Parts: sequence; C-alpha cells; structure tokens
Amino acid sequence: MGDVIQNVLIPVRDGYATVNVEITNDRISAIRHHLDTFETVIDGQDKLLLPGFVNGHTHSSQALQRGLIPQLPLELWLADVLDSSSNDLDAYYLGALFTAVNTLLSGGTCVMDHAYLLAGQELESIRAAVRAYKEVGIRAFIAPLTYDEPFVAAFPSGRSLPHQPYSQSTAEILELMEAVVKEFHDPEAGINIAVGPTGFQRCSDALFEGCAELSDRYNLCRHIHLLETKAQKMLAYEKYGVSGVEHLRRIGFLDHRTSLAHSVWLTDEDIEHLVQTRSTVVHNPSSNLRLGSGIAPILKYIEAGVNVAFGCDGSASNDGQDLLEAIKLGTVLHNVTDFDYRHWITPRMAIDMAAMGGAKGVNLADQTGSLTVGKKADMVLYDLTNLSLLPHTDPIGLLVLGRPTQVVDSVWVNGRRVVANGQVLMTDADHLKQELLNRSRKASRPQFQTIHQVESHYRKVMGL
Amino acid sequence: MGDVIQNVLIPVRDGYATVNVEITNDRISAIRHHLDTFETVIDGQDKLLLPGFVNGHTHSSQALQRGLIPQLPLELWLADVLDSSSNDLDAYYLGALFTAVNTLLSGGTCVMDHAYLLAGQELESIRAAVRAYKEVGIRAFIAPLTYDEPFVAAFPSGRSLPHQPYSQSTAEILELMEAVVKEFHDPEAGINIAVGPTGFQRCSDALFEGCAELSDRYNLCRHIHLLETKAQKMLAYEKYGVSGVEHLRRIGFLDHRTSLAHSVWLTDEDIEHLVQTRSTVVHNPSSNLRLGSGIAPILKYIEAGVNVAFGCDGSASNDGQDLLEAIKLGTVLHNVTDFDYRHWITPRMAIDMAAMGGAKGVNLADQTGSLTVGKKADMVLYDLTNLSLLPHTDPIGLLVLGRPTQVVDSVWVNGRRVVANGQVLMTDADHLKQELLNRSRKASRPQFQTIHQVESHYRKVMGL
Repeated sequence: MGDVIQNVLIPVRDGYATVNVEITNDRISAIRHHLDTFETVIDGQDKLLLPGFVNGHTHSSQALQRGLIPQLPLELWLADVLDSSSNDLDAYYLGALFTAVNTLLSGGTCVMDHAYLLAGQELESIRAAVRAYKEVGIRAFIAPLTYDEPFVAAFPSGRSLPHQPYSQSTAEILELMEAVVKEFHDPEAGINIAVGPTGFQRCSDALFEGCAELSDRYNLCRHIHLLETKAQKMLAYEKYGVSGVEHLRRIGFLDHRTSLAHSVWLTDEDIEHLVQTRSTVVHNPSSNLRLGSGIAPILKYIEAGVNVAFGCDGSASNDGQDLLEAIKLGTVLHNVTDFDYRHWITPRMAIDMAAMGGAKGVNLADQTGSLTVGKKADMVLYDLTNLSLLPHTDPIGLLVLGRPTQVVDSVWVNGRRVVANGQVLMTDADHLKQELLNRSRKASRPQFQTIHQVESHYRKVMGL
Repeated sequence: MGDVIQNVLIPVRDGYATVNVEITNDRISAIRHHLDTFETVIDGQDKLLLPGFVNGHTHSSQALQRGLIPQLPLELWLADVLDSSSNDLDAYYLGALFTAVNTLLSGGTCVMDHAYLLAGQELESIRAAVRAYKEVGIRAFIAPLTYDEPFVAAFPSGRSLPHQPYSQSTAEILELMEAVVKEFHDPEAGINIAVGPTGFQRCSDALFEGCAELSDRYNLCRHIHLLETKAQKMLAYEKYGVSGVEHLRRIGFLDHRTSLAHSVWLTDEDIEHLVQTRSTVVHNPSSNLRLGSGIAPILKYIEAGVNVAFGCDGSASNDGQDLLEAIKLGTVLHNVTDFDYRHWITPRMAIDMAAMGGAKGVNLADQTGSLTVGKKADMVLYDLTNLSLLPHTDPIGLLVLGRPTQVVDSVWVNGRRVVANGQVLMTDADHLKQELLNRSRKASRPQFQTIHQVESHYRKVMGL
C-alpha cells in the first residue's frame, strides 16, 4: 500500500519525537510510536522528517542565465535579462527540470514558477514546463508571466523614453491564459495553473481584473511581483496617486489565494491591506540582496499577522537555486532590522513559514504544509549523518542556520517517493548536467544593448 | 618535481585564459600556454584554478556548538557559549579538524583561528589544534584568544553586576603567550602563532601593549575582535572617553599586521585610522546577521582603501563553516546599503578580497594571494562540471553569486596537494563524521544559566 518510515525524528512542540510515519496512497495515514505494518520499511535512524517546503517564487527559464548578469538594480538587470534570454524550447524544458531538481534537493516539494512565455510559443512553453515537472514528480504551480504594457512603463517617467506599445492586447493575453488553464490545470495530477500578471509596473487594470475573473471562475491562485524596488514605489504614486497595494485592493486583486513576491517597499498601511485580504508575502532574500532591492520588513509582517513564505526567485537574480539557503538568509537577515532579539525568527518558525506558510500561499493549507495524519504526504527526509548536519545539537537549528549540503535523502510528493538516497528517481541528473555542459560550450557571450537605452534615464529619476 | 595542471581556466584581466600551471616544490614555477614538462599531469579541462582564500576569522573549538545556541545578540550569546563549552581536548582537536576540512572544501588554503584556550590546558589546546592543522595540511594562523578582564566587563556599566576579578594576571597571560610562540610558531611548516587579545571589551591596555611587544619581537600577526556590536561602541566611550579605534591606535596596537574581525560600528574617523595604520578588516557577514550585530560598512572601507578579507567566524555564530557562503553574503549584502550599483562589489573583487585581501591580512601578500610565478602554490581547483556551477556563463560570477556545493576538486597548500577528487587526503572524513555522530549520541542538553544573570542588565542598558 505504501511506505513506512521507521524510527524517524520529527519535531514536536517541545523538541523531537522518534516515530513511525506511514504513507497510504497519497496521504500520511498514521504517525505512531509503535510499528504496526510491515510494508516497504525505510530506516529513519539518524534522519529527520519535515513537511515539504514551497519554493514560493521562481522563474524556471532563467536557469541558463545563472552567473551571467552583473549585479544591477532590477530595472537595469531586466534589460540584460531580455538581451540574454533564449527562445529555445529545449532550454526552457531544461530550466524547469533544473528548477525542479534543485527544489527537491533543497527541501521543497512544491514550486511556484512565475513562468516567462516564449514569444510565439506560449502554449509550447507551458507544455515544456509541465513535462519537466511531471517527469520529476514535483507539485507545481505555473503562473504564466503576463503584461500588457511596454518595458519602459516600469520606469518612473518611463513613457518619456522612446518605445512602442506592447505587441499583444489585453484580450489576447486573457484568451491565451484561459487556453492554458483549459489545457494544463490539473490539481489532482499535481499541475496547477495560476494567474501571473507580472506586477503593476507593466500591467493595466484590465489585465488584473481579467486575471482575477479567471481566478474566480477556475479557483486559481494569483501570483504577482509587488513593490520589489524603490522605483516601483515611486511609479505607483505616479500611476495611481495612491500606493500600489491600495490600488490592487481597490480593483479586487488581493485575496487569500494571492501571493506577492518580494513586497519590499510596503508602508504600515499597505501591511494592513495584506492582513485584511489574507494575502501572502513570498520572501526572496537572496534576490533582494543581489539586485540591491532592499530588506523586506518581514518582522513587521509576522507581527501584523501576514502569512510569509520563502522563494528562491529566478536563477538570473539568485544564481543559487537552493531553498535552504533562501530560508537561512530570510531568517537571519532580519536580525539587523530590529535590536530586540525577542522578535527574531527562530529556526522552528522558519521551517513553519517554509512549509505551512508556503502551503497557505498556494491555497493548500488544508492539504499540505504539516506532518498531519490525513494530509497529503509531501515530505522530506534529511540525512543527519551528513557532515554539514553534525553534530546533532538541534537538527532544525543546524538545518536552518548552518550550510546544509546534499542533506536530502528522500522526498515524497503526493505519497510518491520521487527522491531516494539523494537521487531524483525519475530523471537522469547526469544527463541534465551533460546537457548544460554541452550548451555552455556552444553558448556565445550575449551583447547587453538594451541597458544603454535606459540607464541614463534610470540614474536621473533615481537621483544617482 | 611537482604537479602540472594542464589546460586549466584561470582569470585574466578581461576574462579567462586556458593555461598550464606548473608547481615546483612549494612554488608556482610557471604559467604557460604550452606544456613543456611531463611530470604529474592533472587534467584541468572544465576546471577553474584560483588562488586559495583565507578564512580570516574563526574559532575552531565552536564546531561542537553548531546549531545549539539560540539567536541572541553577542553579549547574551556569549553567556550561552560559556555554558555549553567543553573542556575536552579530543573535542578541541576535532573542532580544528572540522574547521580545516570545511575551509579546504570551500576554497580556503589558510585559516586564522582565534583559538579559545581550555582552562588549565592552555598549551595542550594549542598543541591539539596544531596537530589537526598539520594533519590536514592547511596553512594556519593560531591566535590564542586572551583577556584579562571579567565577563561582565564587556557590558556597558557591566562592572555594576556581581563579579569576581579575572583569574589570571596580565603577566601570566603574556608569559603563556610567549611559551606558545616558542613552542609552536613555525612559519616554514605552515603553523603561525599570532597574538589574539579578544578585544577592548575584556582587555587591559597592558595586555594589548604586551601583545604588541611580542608581535614586534617575533614578527607575529595581531588579531582581535573590533566593534562587533553597538554595546561595544557604547562601552568604548565609557571606558576610554574616545572611540575604541582611536584608543587602540594611541596605544600602538594597530599596524599592517593587524586584522580586525567584524568592524561593524566604526565612524568615518575610525576608518581613517585603519587607512593610516594599514590594518585589515575581516568581514564575517553570516555571524553579523545571526547575532544581529549589524551590517559592516564594507563599501565605505573599500572606497577609503582599507584592506578587507572574509571570515566564517566560529560555528556557534555561523553554524555553516563555508567560506564560499561567507563570500557570497559579504558580496551581495552591501547592495542594500548603497543605491548606486556602481559601488557594489563585483564577483572578481570578491575573489580578490578573499585571496589577496586575506593574504594581506595575515602579512603574506608577498608570498600568497594570487596566481603568480614565484609565489607559494596555495591554490584551489574547482570542478565546473558540478551541477551547481552549470552552465558556464561566467564561472567566477556563478562561484560567488550561486550556491556552490562540493565544487572543490583539488587544493594545494605550499605546493603540496592536500585535496584531490574532492577528498581531503591526509585525514579520514568518515572518521570525523563518525566521531561527531558518536559525540552527538552521548551529548546532554546544556543548561543555559549565565544568561539569566545578565539579561535584564543588558536589556536595560540597551534600551530594550
């Protein structure tokens, strides 16, 4: 019927307990101190079992741009992203495969892919990502990244720059989105489509409203970038005369299925809007540092009662794709924002944010996010004999505050074991490596041109 | 005579070159485009060679406290460190072994161990560390951590707390230091003793002056903690009436052999003192976040011309001990401290800080720190076929900004290959793991008592 993980350490309120965890079909069917069944028994000795984490925000197709783009603020970095993006479907598939493998091997069982679409191959892009996620066996949310305003619109006073209107109409984009939903949205199979207008910096109200309508009609999650940079905060007042968060609430985009990547530049009033709408913040600390976006006020969110999850963000802005790294950084970074250590995020809180906070952010809190009998078996087994997790002082303390390296022994998604002995079972990691290596040898250095068209404007409006 | 690394990538001014690097005895004897000799040839295909980095500040004996201590500000955290420290020489040796192995496997060829001394076994402690470092083959600086003032002296107004005078006299400590130098200081063998008064928060002027005198007499490096916390900054004015940096300069402690761990709370005038004295700052970003110490003004140091190196700090305040992690964090963290991206640290600058900045910090700039013919062969070979370093966009970009995992193929220290195929050659890593595992099973949970004697005072003086 299923696996039994025997004598495994799990966290309990005051510490740890050693238990047997039984999986039947897709569910956790029992957590017992004594072993009753003798199905496929997995030795849990010197291992720690945790609920799977959610990688709450990434862009899988950036995998091939890792390490490539200089450290620049988001608006200029995006120019380089554009100039170095490939239109190759095979590369797109590899990016999703890479993202899925890295997520599984760093504690994640679920990924929110805010997925770029290849121009002219929009449905094929999503098909390639779905193929990769099904192959690897990860639970996936794919939010096709859409916008209906031109690149320059994202800069304060940006429309003064030479530009052409965006090529697709809002109606065409919404039509495409519905086609994606109809073809690919299949929660039972672990593939979920979400609406993903990129953010107010490049989206019209009509696009947000159309996406919200689709979300209501098909019960889809909503996923956007929100106030990642100071420039976006300036832009919101220029565009709406009010804060971007207030505007999004007014037009009905924020709800309990909405997750907001970054959320760096919010005011106290904005935070209250998130509380009222039960929206989720996805914290991407590595990316926020790499792009100099700022430190998101996560301790304020927690104090206010906003749900917070963690994300890696895309490989072009977090050239690592390790969820445990994002969790560590997203935990300790905030200690320098509040002198009172009693407000700091503990390792146990961090684990809960990564698992249950992540599950809430994708509207799955009743199904995943904790080791609870009856919930989906989305779980990760960590090898505590790995040097990076020794000695066993506090395994969760060291998992979060240390530098865990190749510590994932096994992963179950929807009750199915997709990683065993540190190896992803359904895909050939050596083949993935070889493909990336082959592509490296053929790749030519990109020419970064677009940045020259916008840099002086950026420096002027930002007072640099 | 030595190894030749064939067809290996090295960084050059405008990019990379593929070369052959020859090692003769302890030196880099040639870097050529064509291969002349046919000694032990190491295939450099798909590998990157860099000068070894310096782990400029750690406390090796904290290895057994990883993951153990809650996130607390330094002054309270130290109370827990005291309560959970072991007096076991075997554990001490294991800590040094662990630190050496982790440093080598994360790009380091040299470590500055600000080494706690076991009470009553001071010489034996150093002997255990020396044994570990010689066994593994890393270049080591050991700065015995000394102080002559009581624990409470480190708190603002701390002497109002009940306390006893420190048990050893300044003269006894200096006598011990000289004995350590005479027995262990052996630069040719790769073992260097440095003077290591912990910092002005627990050291008298007499101790600083005595250490400076030893440093002059034996040409030893000087290594201290400096202004790690806001509390220390307050204490300096309480103790000296001037900034701690100004005081240290007045008493003659700062010079070109002096490295200053942390250096978080310096003023612009303090920075000028570092420039004038050619002192080195050792940046420990992971620890500074974990303890909420603050973000050191590294971009200001670089702009002023202060030499900056990187360190991991001890395992109790950076539960990872991965130099590449410290370098990444110490690179991207500062992007949120200055909006002008033209001031940000590039990956190439970071590599140079880690290698040459580190070498300068231990007064070895003429001997190590770069791939230069005639210099000591302290070098690290990275495997670019590792998934975490793929694809090959910019290998140094990805090494610094990514999340490199088990990427070190080989390491040479003083011309001797001490790591090959990712394995430390002279020690048994499995034995190290087993020892740590055995100790885990026997360890009892420490009782954190001391914190209760100082916490309310700390909260009061810090306005919490």
